[in-house]
Amino acid sequence: MHKVNLKDLAHATNISISSVSKALRDSHEISSETKKKVIAKAQEMGYTPNPYAGFLRNQKSKTIAVIVPELTNNYFIQAISGAESIAQEFSYHVLIYTTNDDFEKEASILQHLSNGRVDGILISVSSNTNSLTQLNELIQAGIPVVFFDRICHEIETAKVTTNDFASGFIATEHLIKSGCKNIAYLSISDHLSIDQKRKQGYFEALNKYDIQHDESFIIKCGADEKTNASKIKKMLTGKKHVDGIFASVEKLALKTYKVCNELKINIPKDVKIISFSNLRTADLLNPSLTTITQPAYEIGKEAAKILFNHLAKRKSIIQNENIVINSVLTVRNSTSTNTK
Amino acid sequence: MHKVNLKDLAHATNISISSVSKALRDSHEISSETKKKVIAKAQEMGYTPNPYAGFLRNQKSKTIAVIVPELTNNYFIQAISGAESIAQEFSYHVLIYTTNDDFEKEASILQHLSNGRVDGILISVSSNTNSLTQLNELIQAGIPVVFFDRICHEIETAKVTTNDFASGFIATEHLIKSGCKNIAYLSISDHLSIDQKRKQGYFEALNKYDIQHDESFIIKCGADEKTNASKIKKMLTGKKHVDGIFASVEKLALKTYKVCNELKINIPKDVKIISFSNLRTADLLNPSLTTITQPAYEIGKEAAKILFNHLAKRKSIIQNENIVINSVLTVRNSTSTNTK
Repeated sequence: MHKVNLKDLAHATNISISSVSKALRDSHEISSETKKKVIAKAQEMGYTPNPYAGFLRNQKSKTIAVIVPELTNNYFIQAISGAESIAQEFSYHVLIYTTNDDFEKEASILQHLSNGRVDGILISVSSNTNSLTQLNELIQAGIPVVFFDRICHEIETAKVTTNDFASGFIATEHLIKSGCKNIAYLSISDHLSIDQKRKQGYFEALNKYDIQHDESFIIKCGADEKTNASKIKKMLTGKKHVDGIFASVEKLALKTYKVCNELKINIPKDVKIISFSNLRTADLLNPSLTTITQPAYEIGKEAAKILFNHLAKRKSIIQNENIVINSVLTVRNSTSTNTK
Repeated sequence: MHKVNLKDLAHATNISISSVSKALRDSHEISSETKKKVIAKAQEMGYTPNPYAGFLRNQKSKTIAVIVPELTNNYFIQAISGAESIAQEFSYHVLIYTTNDDFEKEASILQHLSNGRVDGILISVSSNTNSLTQLNELIQAGIPVVFFDRICHEIETAKVTTNDFASGFIATEHLIKSGCKNIAYLSISDHLSIDQKRKQGYFEALNKYDIQHDESFIIKCGADEKTNASKIKKMLTGKKHVDGIFASVEKLALKTYKVCNELKINIPKDVKIISFSNLRTADLLNPSLTTITQPAYEIGKEAAKILFNHLAKRKSIIQNENIVINSVLTVRNSTSTNTK
């Protein structure tokens, strides 16, 4: 038996496939008269839609997805929690997906979501995201996407971040004011918007205080823990004495602590450390860690608010917008000048 | 227009509703001939199923859910990661849900999953789970459930845990051997299987070393952080000097560290601390924290293995089974006797 498809429906109603599809998705672009006509014909012909797609969009999945690179970073846990606080208000469920900071897995998840399983998506992209095809397709299919933290500038939608450039500047300036002259920057990925901005802030501060920029002080870390450790070790035992370290993300600061313990390098006496971090145990570490504390909960909350406002309006595209919520410098012992 | 339902299909095929439903779910209890008959009739009559349910179960959602009480506990992050490693082998997606350790939210998530959105569920229940109705309904509806860590003994299925009783004994014995005489137990919830077993292990060790059990040394903590802090503070400033603390979960150990910092109580000189914990920063804390380290990754992996074995076989019920993977005592400075 031939299974009735969109083409058959288009033929029977004398409406284009694209309009039939939109009508079944309850798009605002289609008149309610046309919608009624299409739905009646779909029922008459026994059209069985893709279970998760179009036809049932007006029943709404009452679900949003939050896609993050990793769960071992407290930043993302807090951002998810912020998004959940808003979802709860709207009686929505939140599906959490982790990409393990891997673009292939991210693409597979986005593909999986393209059939309308969720009403909208909040995403912080992986470090090696190199294609926007999937994201663009989702948006074109009418599934709204809002970025937070690790954003794609190229895509037209709302993006919620912290003031990465200014915070990178503040972090570096704090090290300079604490007496550091040879400051290393631990980069997590050249591809990431947040990393680029934090590094630019670092350069800006060096420039303000007339400190020569030394390319060998930019340590390019990545996904592999062991490689990161050996790069940090090489830096700390190198000819040029590093007296300050600015870690772009929390896990690189923790790795530096471990390496310093191993090499019996005293923090903050021998080297001072500051990191972007939302670590719960930052104040319990030995020594307590000076951080740029991001408003992760608020960022997740704001991104969700934009998404839900949009879902309530049923518009097809979220306006391009950059929302910035400022981070806070929290000074602790890892940058202390009192090193008796 | 009357919407064709299961009853109509049953009438038209002269098969019971329950068998029609099973046939549409591709149950092994139904012959393939009957399945063909039912599906043909369903298509002929234009039967539109619940988008996420029965009819499409044979298309499989290729998705499992992992439900955990919280993401701020590294134990659950690692368990999820273990489950994901298996799901990846089977090209399945993992949806992560958090209950915020709240039974109401847990019930709502289970309800949400009852329509076949996922092929199976791994769950660690919330501290206040007091009804098994939803879980039983899911299992009866043919959605397999495997418990890990925080289990429900009453439900017949596979349960993967660590050796909570023996580990509770080992933790307490370690404190006793480190010279502690007045050992407090920080309980997270009377309702939880893991808490009860860990506490029993604590009693057993006290008993072995002829240490009188003091009811006032059982500190009943809960979800509220502030109440926990004030209970711990009260314990540490009380008339009876506590010289050893066994925290049932990581967050209670961290709270104790903060309270000790505030009260200027020296760990391990004034009080020694051990905790069940999978904290990444356990060895970086001041002082480093002695832990009962759970094989969280392996527990998540094992639970997922059982679920996928079951999904491959398409049997309707997972056999009752208790799988135990042992924890490891990791001695660090918080229980050190070298307190010069």
